[in-house]
Amino acid sequence: MNAAPRRLESLICGRWTPGERQGAPLLDAATGALVAHIDASGIDMGAALDWGRRTGGPALRAMSFHDRAAMLKALGLALMARKEVFYAESYRTGATRADGWVDIEGGIGTMLTYASKGRRELPNTRVLTDGDLEPLSRDHSFSAQHILTPLQGVAVHINAYNFPVWGMLEKIAPALLAGMPCIVKPASQTAYLTELVVRAINDTGILPAGALQLICGSVGDLLDHVTGQDVVTFTGSAWTGRKLRSHKPIVENSTRFTMEADSLNASILGPDAGPGTPEFDLFLREVAREMTSKAGQKCTAIRRVMVPAAHIDAVQDALARRLAGATPGLPAAEGTRMGPLASLDQREEVRARIRELQAVARIVAGDPDAVPAGLEGGAFMAPVLLRADDPMTAVAVHDCEAFGPVATLMPYDGVDQAVALAAMGKGSLVSSVFTDDARVAEEMVLGLAPFHGRVMIGNRVSAKSSTGHGSPLAGLVHGGPGRAGGGEELGGMRGVKHYMQRTAVQGAPGLLSAVTGRWSEGAPAQTGTHPFRKSLAELRIGDQLVTAARPVTQEDVEHFAHFTGDTFYAHMDSDAARANPFFDDRVAHGYLIASFAAGLFVDPAPGPVLANYGVDHMRFLAPVYFGDTLQVRLTCKEINPRANADHGEVRWDCQVTKQDGTVAAQYDVLTMVAKTWGQAAQAAE
Amino acid sequence: MNAAPRRLESLICGRWTPGERQGAPLLDAATGALVAHIDASGIDMGAALDWGRRTGGPALRAMSFHDRAAMLKALGLALMARKEVFYAESYRTGATRADGWVDIEGGIGTMLTYASKGRRELPNTRVLTDGDLEPLSRDHSFSAQHILTPLQGVAVHINAYNFPVWGMLEKIAPALLAGMPCIVKPASQTAYLTELVVRAINDTGILPAGALQLICGSVGDLLDHVTGQDVVTFTGSAWTGRKLRSHKPIVENSTRFTMEADSLNASILGPDAGPGTPEFDLFLREVAREMTSKAGQKCTAIRRVMVPAAHIDAVQDALARRLAGATPGLPAAEGTRMGPLASLDQREEVRARIRELQAVARIVAGDPDAVPAGLEGGAFMAPVLLRADDPMTAVAVHDCEAFGPVATLMPYDGVDQAVALAAMGKGSLVSSVFTDDARVAEEMVLGLAPFHGRVMIGNRVSAKSSTGHGSPLAGLVHGGPGRAGGGEELGGMRGVKHYMQRTAVQGAPGLLSAVTGRWSEGAPAQTGTHPFRKSLAELRIGDQLVTAARPVTQEDVEHFAHFTGDTFYAHMDSDAARANPFFDDRVAHGYLIASFAAGLFVDPAPGPVLANYGVDHMRFLAPVYFGDTLQVRLTCKEINPRANADHGEVRWDCQVTKQDGTVAAQYDVLTMVAKTWGQAAQAAE
Repeated sequence: MNAAPRRLESLICGRWTPGERQGAPLLDAATGALVAHIDASGIDMGAALDWGRRTGGPALRAMSFHDRAAMLKALGLALMARKEVFYAESYRTGATRADGWVDIEGGIGTMLTYASKGRRELPNTRVLTDGDLEPLSRDHSFSAQHILTPLQGVAVHINAYNFPVWGMLEKIAPALLAGMPCIVKPASQTAYLTELVVRAINDTGILPAGALQLICGSVGDLLDHVTGQDVVTFTGSAWTGRKLRSHKPIVENSTRFTMEADSLNASILGPDAGPGTPEFDLFLREVAREMTSKAGQKCTAIRRVMVPAAHIDAVQDALARRLAGATPGLPAAEGTRMGPLASLDQREEVRARIRELQAVARIVAGDPDAVPAGLEGGAFMAPVLLRADDPMTAVAVHDCEAFGPVATLMPYDGVDQAVALAAMGKGSLVSSVFTDDARVAEEMVLGLAPFHGRVMIGNRVSAKSSTGHGSPLAGLVHGGPGRAGGGEELGGMRGVKHYMQRTAVQGAPGLLSAVTGRWSEGAPAQTGTHPFRKSLAELRIGDQLVTAARPVTQEDVEHFAHFTGDTFYAHMDSDAARANPFFDDRVAHGYLIASFAAGLFVDPAPGPVLANYGVDHMRFLAPVYFGDTLQVRLTCKEINPRANADHGEVRWDCQVTKQDGTVAAQYDVLTMVAKTWGQAAQAAE
Repeated sequence: MNAAPRRLESLICGRWTPGERQGAPLLDAATGALVAHIDASGIDMGAALDWGRRTGGPALRAMSFHDRAAMLKALGLALMARKEVFYAESYRTGATRADGWVDIEGGIGTMLTYASKGRRELPNTRVLTDGDLEPLSRDHSFSAQHILTPLQGVAVHINAYNFPVWGMLEKIAPALLAGMPCIVKPASQTAYLTELVVRAINDTGILPAGALQLICGSVGDLLDHVTGQDVVTFTGSAWTGRKLRSHKPIVENSTRFTMEADSLNASILGPDAGPGTPEFDLFLREVAREMTSKAGQKCTAIRRVMVPAAHIDAVQDALARRLAGATPGLPAAEGTRMGPLASLDQREEVRARIRELQAVARIVAGDPDAVPAGLEGGAFMAPVLLRADDPMTAVAVHDCEAFGPVATLMPYDGVDQAVALAAMGKGSLVSSVFTDDARVAEEMVLGLAPFHGRVMIGNRVSAKSSTGHGSPLAGLVHGGPGRAGGGEELGGMRGVKHYMQRTAVQGAPGLLSAVTGRWSEGAPAQTGTHPFRKSLAELRIGDQLVTAARPVTQEDVEHFAHFTGDTFYAHMDSDAARANPFFDDRVAHGYLIASFAAGLFVDPAPGPVLANYGVDHMRFLAPVYFGDTLQVRLTCKEINPRANADHGEVRWDCQVTKQDGTVAAQYDVLTMVAKTWGQAAQAAE
């Protein structure tokens, strides 16, 4: 069933390149059979970085965010179509089908989420604006706008062995969307699966040349060549991470460095969630699942199980029963709920950590040395539950991570102590709290938050829909402070911005608009043809309409009030309006002002403007009294053509002023506008 | 005139503490007179960190953002009232009155800007939400919200000598606003001024105990005690910065570390901006000003002066003339435009760097060894302009920073080469471009952006209002990639978030609401009394009104169209509407839907709801056809009482549905609501 051993190659400068030596053997986690040899000696790492910078970077930066999002979508779909090939190889890493699903489909799903979020949440441009315009002068002759541009180096991703597919895809998706080429260095143990996926990616031809390179083997002197425009991310052991963070060229060039390392994640049973409650059962199920899925080799796995002292025996008994059913078996075999660890070395490492934990805790379920009959060649290990009865002094249970199916149960007394215990982990990726009490949720989560990148609350309401304690999601931050490495990945568009430089651009609004593609107050504007008569092909930032003026009368306001039913006293009753702290007399409705404004600026005949699909940031800045006259200035602010449609979004700055120039209302009007309009479009009708 | 030499003390654990030894002498930059002695030996630095964590942290975190903003405002005003005391001491650092203004009033102004931005841009809460709610299930039973909470450690600020006041205040303002206590360690050379300001701060009693500590002298083993909850920022030499970044406890605990170091900032004259243009004159003025203000000892000073090859001689002549007028003199003397460097050692250092630069450039104005007659005791130095005619190969001019009144002039050929030269600085805090050509501005700025934290464009329009190349502003990011240290400070609320942990919180919306104080779809809601009858004292998140239904008729739409003037064809002409890609027939106006919605939810009689001051994120999600019936669900989403008023802002989730449940419109309604209402309030009328 298994193929002949392969000799892994690196994808460098667009070519599959073997190392100079045969290299180290990589063994099947379950059978010990030889899967591949790995070696990257003799590869010119400086040339790889240069290739990425000179070839991949410019090609990616020439694309818009929507182009790159479409590229990720095409790539994700192409990989999904080949997923069974990856599953077959994934078994050899020790992953069951369920484990492989998290790795393979979870990874591809993350890429597809970035594709769809990129299209929805980013404009179809090559520069991002960040935050609002900062006016720096009263006369609008000097303003500032923060922008984000892709860094011009290479993103070097040094990944862990446990998720050879997800670990790569969750990092390259935001980097490529940002416009940065990547060099991926998977951990050797499972690099054969990553290499297979990169071969698939490369075969599709979807990525531009230089956008993705792969190193199978040691990175050699790669990190001696990084600059301040490169980014290095690391997932793996704290020891290696610290070494990399202190690496001289990284320090000297202030190279962005993101690390995700050890984390002794906690799961806490709420004081309200005793035996018999749905939360008690959900908690048990989650702890058992996190201990056994991927044989506990997950950076987000639950290592510390905190329960109210009164319930610790009940939890121990129930958990021990559940774990007893989780016998490890062959990953590909039907019915196997837990596979082996990644390697025999890894199992030795886990056993050593358990011995350390035994100094302060005792084993209450499982035997670390038991080996299932007939599976002696693989790195199998049954789940092990320890118990520490004095966790405030048992430092090792907060310090020593056994990266396998191992967790320590401990009692707590009160919410404050649970939070204090969790904080003794010195920073974790994730903790979870199982409670149905809003006050417990509030106190626990706010206490845990400074020490965590993610906190999950479990209760009966979310029982079916919850994605669980252990699942990083593309839209949510993944990473944690302190021991967890201090890094931040994913988090939707936050993760994209990690690969971009934020720059405050200051200047006259007209020049700022040229840089950002966004009109702002004080920038030049052009009048002439009604801008609603212009298609995207003709419309320009700064195209402006200044309307005629219209008075607002008492009759208008009363009529509108009775027509709409909004007879709020400030519009109807002079004495009551005057008693209001904001008004000197009866005022026009805000919605009436906006409606009259539309009446002033809309051009009624069919044309390229197809619909008003919304309004943003509408503020009624000064009361409009009877007899006031309104006038509108409408200016084209942003143009965002869609990649896959005949139209795009146009955002208009809408300013409604009174006869004395006071701004009565200010807002953005959002419209859909056709890309072309006129003879061709009319002929088609 | 000058006071007797002082012995500086540190403010540690709430007490002014002298070092064990008299310590090093600090001399007046202009006269060489002894100003003070500095020493911090024998101070228990671990205890100082503990004091901040146990006393200052909890006190600050007990306050809301608005409480902390009010505290900063009071403090800023108190310091401004004492500014003349600071000016008197500032002269001894070598700063002229104008230099002192940047340092003293610029620093206090930054604190006041944080006070006012904090009140305007942050809610009056203790937890920040970050970004939008992330729905994680279709049935709204599981969602996520990112939150920001203050880190529970201490912010350690290690500052440079050049801005002893601004350098402290620009860092403590965002940290204190975030809720983090600070320990400030100013550079020794000018610590006597920082100490004077901290004495003034301490005397006001405005900050809670433990919120601010000061170390005058060496930090000793302070950094051996930092954890993952602390933050360390450093401004100063790259050499020291790298040492700190690699410091073992900082690396091991993933302590957040922000660095701002050397930066060879460029100023570029645009190809369009030849002699005779306003931009040419603005450029000369700015370069001369940046070389001479603070005697060039500014991290943002212009070090590299890039001009089109055709104009280099013209620039050199004009600049030399301007600099010839900038004779250094006594800082406190009237008419002095440039003071001395900070110390004689510093002048030796600058002279050594000039000698390095002379290997690839020649001096074309100024004499580094000339000393003004009668000022031999001070660290005076005239401005020095060098010129490098082959800057693409003259690596030293992009590498070697003379931290004084020194810059190097160099020619460029085309926008691409100017950008390439600027990038040879390997990352800078700021560059400026002088141009009145929108295309030049666009190409230059987008080329420069990845290498800079700030880019300023100068032209005739902003000539009077521009804050200049060298001024970091509270609202804009300060920091740069690569050589500049990779840090990011200020940037308005971005700078506050540097002291907070971002956490993704997942759970059932009801429990999420308890944590975030923000109602979201799927969270429980209460109906009963119309929520517009409730004051802030009675109103709760989730208070909800479901209105009666109202049909929309053809008559309504036509009536509204003629009344407002908005006769857009999609409302009026069935055939034209059907030809529109978004509509199947004539539709109601979006503004009509919103107006009818208000008619349905508004409670007309006087009550605690005072005004509708705006609408956010309004989206028309489905067309409303004639005969459709509208119904509104209005839910109290956020409550934000103002600290200094009788009312506060309330944000309502407004969902307008059609008879079949389709959402026709979704938006936030923003209202002002009284804190109390009823018998007491009515009696007052």
